[in-house]
Amino acid sequence: MHRRPDLPAAVRIWEVAPRDGLQNEPSVVPARVKAELVARLVGAGLTTVETSSFVDPAWVPQLADAEEVFSLLEPLRATPDHVHGAALHFPALVPNLRGLERAVSSGVRDVCVFASATETFAWKNLNRSRDEVLERFVPVVTEAKARGLGVRAYVSMCFGDPWEGPVEEADVVSVCERLLEMGADEVSLGDTIGVATTGQVVDMLDALARAGVPARRIAVHFHDTYGQALANTLTALSCGITTVDASAGGIGGCPFAKSATGNLATEDLCWALAGAGVSTGVDLDRLVETSVWMAERLGRPSPSKVVRVLAQRSQGTRSEQ
Amino acid sequence: MHRRPDLPAAVRIWEVAPRDGLQNEPSVVPARVKAELVARLVGAGLTTVETSSFVDPAWVPQLADAEEVFSLLEPLRATPDHVHGAALHFPALVPNLRGLERAVSSGVRDVCVFASATETFAWKNLNRSRDEVLERFVPVVTEAKARGLGVRAYVSMCFGDPWEGPVEEADVVSVCERLLEMGADEVSLGDTIGVATTGQVVDMLDALARAGVPARRIAVHFHDTYGQALANTLTALSCGITTVDASAGGIGGCPFAKSATGNLATEDLCWALAGAGVSTGVDLDRLVETSVWMAERLGRPSPSKVVRVLAQRSQGTRSEQ
Repeated sequence: MHRRPDLPAAVRIWEVAPRDGLQNEPSVVPARVKAELVARLVGAGLTTVETSSFVDPAWVPQLADAEEVFSLLEPLRATPDHVHGAALHFPALVPNLRGLERAVSSGVRDVCVFASATETFAWKNLNRSRDEVLERFVPVVTEAKARGLGVRAYVSMCFGDPWEGPVEEADVVSVCERLLEMGADEVSLGDTIGVATTGQVVDMLDALARAGVPARRIAVHFHDTYGQALANTLTALSCGITTVDASAGGIGGCPFAKSATGNLATEDLCWALAGAGVSTGVDLDRLVETSVWMAERLGRPSPSKVVRVLAQRSQGTRSEQ
Repeated sequence: MHRRPDLPAAVRIWEVAPRDGLQNEPSVVPARVKAELVARLVGAGLTTVETSSFVDPAWVPQLADAEEVFSLLEPLRATPDHVHGAALHFPALVPNLRGLERAVSSGVRDVCVFASATETFAWKNLNRSRDEVLERFVPVVTEAKARGLGVRAYVSMCFGDPWEGPVEEADVVSVCERLLEMGADEVSLGDTIGVATTGQVVDMLDALARAGVPARRIAVHFHDTYGQALANTLTALSCGITTVDASAGGIGGCPFAKSATGNLATEDLCWALAGAGVSTGVDLDRLVETSVWMAERLGRPSPSKVVRVLAQRSQGTRSEQ
């Protein structure tokens, strides 16, 4: 254990494999497998597991069974909140009031909306201007808060856009400010195409701090397209961020963004944080087991390096027995 | 460009693909391909390219043609030193006085010796105790310095050993001190099995600084087994290190170490450093071209994420034309 004094003592991992991960898989996974994935992730110590999406099933057929998944998870969701020493959260994406209603009917207590830092991606992904996307979420966030739900806002393309190239910090700051003003509890800064580097991360978080946005209301969401996700995440932590998004086994991405590849693998992050003496509450062996199990269901090996090495090692141990 | 003030303004990349990379390939690459690889790497702006090894060919058959490679490189090595704005270096590994003689006969001007931070790896890799390995290099380093050669010393297993587990900082410090005392210009700290995390890197470099070893005499050499290589390298740079080892295309590893996988990919490092405003002198496009060319010769895609994305992108551009 080599505690890094510049990192926080504890980090909340916002696990996105069942939603952001499976949304990007070519194959559709049965609802019972999704529910088992969520349950296994909770069993591995993850307390926030983004579970599904209530967007129009025509957009994301992979997650068309959100109601069924939440229904299968009812026993787990009924678990007393503090059985793990922390409240359990099963957030879901909602695109509009209709999605919010569906989510609430399924007993969802935490919802996520999604905006874009750039005009082009707003048009490509949501067929509206960046500001129209934001205004469209005002009634959704207002209603969600009125019902006492937790609200997170994703902001896509914070560090680069495949059509526009570099993104102005001021644009990201203004979108984040608008989302927090309308009532979101936190914003998650997405490097949707995985181009960010550590210097950019420092500058962006500086810009948000200068604008008065507290670090506790910011999460980071890095993709590993250029192999930078872990370095970027650790840099964000050294800037005071304490919530980071990751995907068990490294699965997922964004099907609507050119060149997007997988999310930061939760296991690679946990290896780094365990080594730095940062508490996550995750049982790495159980998490690796879960990702190996899921990779079998997806029919391809996990892209996570930690999963590959530890899975191989435990197989080796078994075959030596 | 987002300059990180905690990183050095410029970094020397010690390119290891032709030696550490190819040494770990199952197939043997012809000497003319190796020579072309070295020439292309220099063409991409890398000024230190570890070229081959004068160990017993029975140990490393992949590099049995060291003499032929250096002979093919004679025209390039005859290039005036400052044509690239920096002296060119083509170091080679030497295991003993006989290897040194072979290297000198081939016109080699920079040699590398290799020690172990742990007893077990010293025995497994070199069939001697850790101290015997060190003492055996005294005449080699002495002779090399007497001839005016540059001398680097690799230290394996600095951050973890597959048999012994964690490695004491004091052991690494004492091995480094001994190698520098006997005349080595610099030591390269190897995370041979890729288990290190950033906290360990900080602590190890602290321990060396406290022992009075100047940062300019230390290089770092990370493997990406657990996906930590880039984060560890950037952490070392933030601790004042300015020489880092990397392998174009991410090829290579250590065939004698259990669980070792590829080196840090030079391209992934260059992407990170370009973003942080750190000068390397590398032309990333030419480097990616080189790694794509080499991957074709090795018959498998490069494990570097930057290579995969940029190669795909340039192919896309070509096919759109």
